[in-house]
Amino acid sequence: MLITLEGIEGSGKSTQMKRIAAHLEKKGRRCVLTREPGDTSIGKKIRAILLDPENRELTSLAELFLYAADRAQHLGERVRPCLAAGDVVVSDRFFDATTAYQGYARGLDLEVIEKIHAMVLKDLRPDLTLLLDLPPEVGLKRAISAIESGDRTVAESRFENEALVFHEKVRQGYLALAAKEPGRFVLVDATLTPDEVTEEILVAIDARLARSKG
Amino acid sequence: MLITLEGIEGSGKSTQMKRIAAHLEKKGRRCVLTREPGDTSIGKKIRAILLDPENRELTSLAELFLYAADRAQHLGERVRPCLAAGDVVVSDRFFDATTAYQGYARGLDLEVIEKIHAMVLKDLRPDLTLLLDLPPEVGLKRAISAIESGDRTVAESRFENEALVFHEKVRQGYLALAAKEPGRFVLVDATLTPDEVTEEILVAIDARLARSKG
Ligand SMILES: Nc1ncnc2c1ncn2[C@@H]1O[C@H](COP(=O)(O)OP(=O)(O)OP(=O)(O)O)[C@@H](O)[C@H]1O
Ligand SMILES: Nc1ncnc2c1ncn2[C@@H]1O[C@H](COP(=O)(O)OP(=O)(O)OP(=O)(O)O)[C@@H](O)[C@H]1O
Ligand SMILES: [Mg+2]
Ligand SMILES: [Mg+2]
Repeated sequence: MLITLEGIEGSGKSTQMKRIAAHLEKKGRRCVLTREPGDTSIGKKIRAILLDPENRELTSLAELFLYAADRAQHLGERVRPCLAAGDVVVSDRFFDATTAYQGYARGLDLEVIEKIHAMVLKDLRPDLTLLLDLPPEVGLKRAISAIESGDRTVAESRFENEALVFHEKVRQGYLALAAKEPGRFVLVDATLTPDEVTEEILVAIDARLARSKG
Repeated sequence: MLITLEGIEGSGKSTQMKRIAAHLEKKGRRCVLTREPGDTSIGKKIRAILLDPENRELTSLAELFLYAADRAQHLGERVRPCLAAGDVVVSDRFFDATTAYQGYARGLDLEVIEKIHAMVLKDLRPDLTLLLDLPPEVGLKRAISAIESGDRTVAESRFENEALVFHEKVRQGYLALAAKEPGRFVLVDATLTPDEVTEEILVAIDARLARSKG
């Protein structure tokens, strides 16, 4: 089973990952936490190119292919072997992030993006995608206070430099994707407290696990 | 006008580049020499991932997308602006190398490769492709003696570690491409002396320039 977490910056994806793992392990399911971009050692080198603010000249098409390279490596080296071993794989961002950021927000051709997804994913799709939905102002405020409290550095993110209107486009892109695939997506209100968000997520995961058994 | 040089390792591409530039400048054409991968500063970082022998786990699909990212950046930042300015651009390797190495030699789906080329190149294609053809044993012998004489390091190349049978597949791939597009490709016998190879190349370039004028 493959579960993905999506949502704009500061929506709480990383915060929820460990809680999901703890829940699954308690239920006796072996669980692998992963993320995009930068899970594999080659992916880390690709991530460094993607997030380096010095690389301002990076064209949007080159950016798209770097994400595809990271994803191909991630799938080949991590996700597919773990799924084959029967683990539950939980990924902090996955291919929907490319459609939302590069497609809906940056305006790259959605058909080109879908063709690349077909090459990289073949017929693999997440069994469940949790969309942590949130107004961008709230997400950015959280991200900024995480920087101020020293939990992360400004340099760690290129997206934090984008305007609020960009993040609103990302959010709308995610919502459009969720509307197209209501069977795969579960929308979570990410303005709630961390515990409330966890509660919503675990209910969705348990329902999905029950469905796959029954 | 876009001219590309192709051929296996040691076929003499880099050796011929400067001679081509000198000839074009003498004819009063402004000329830009470039190469793939690694012409742009972002491309150099991508090239470092591609050629690092430590990255043995690099999947062939991830490799394909890294080449696509390098090429997209190369086109956006260098090739298209120079062509728009009226320069003659001469590139040491270009998209045919991906078809020959990743497609014909490594066995990646040629249709997938062509779809990626369509995304990256759109309707740009070289006006002339010079294929420096050579038996792999000769090319490898030259590459090895270049290493021995200190002209290049072993680490600079991942391909040098590939077996001879791999290079033979690359060569056959290039020849298949040339057979498909006889109007674009000119085959050059790269076993000749450097001066003889230059002579063949310059004749082909002058013929192509004359054709584009007339
Ligand atoms: N439900 C919540 N309510 C309030 N603050 C939260 C909530 N969830 C997370 N936070 C805080 O917001 C900040 C960002 O959270 P987190 O890093 O989990 O978001 P993210 O979705 O992973 O963001 P990014 O896309 O930047 O990685 C952190 O400081 C975190 O403690
Ligand atoms: N026609 C030739 N005859 C003999 N030696 C040659 C000839 N052309 C090039 N060489 C020598 O062979 C070696 C490889 O040449 P060169 O670097 O130009 O090849 P290349 O096609 O650029 O290879 P690579 O794909 O590895 O970059 C060099 O040492 C060069 O001096
Ligand atoms: Mg996070
Ligand atoms: Mg060379």
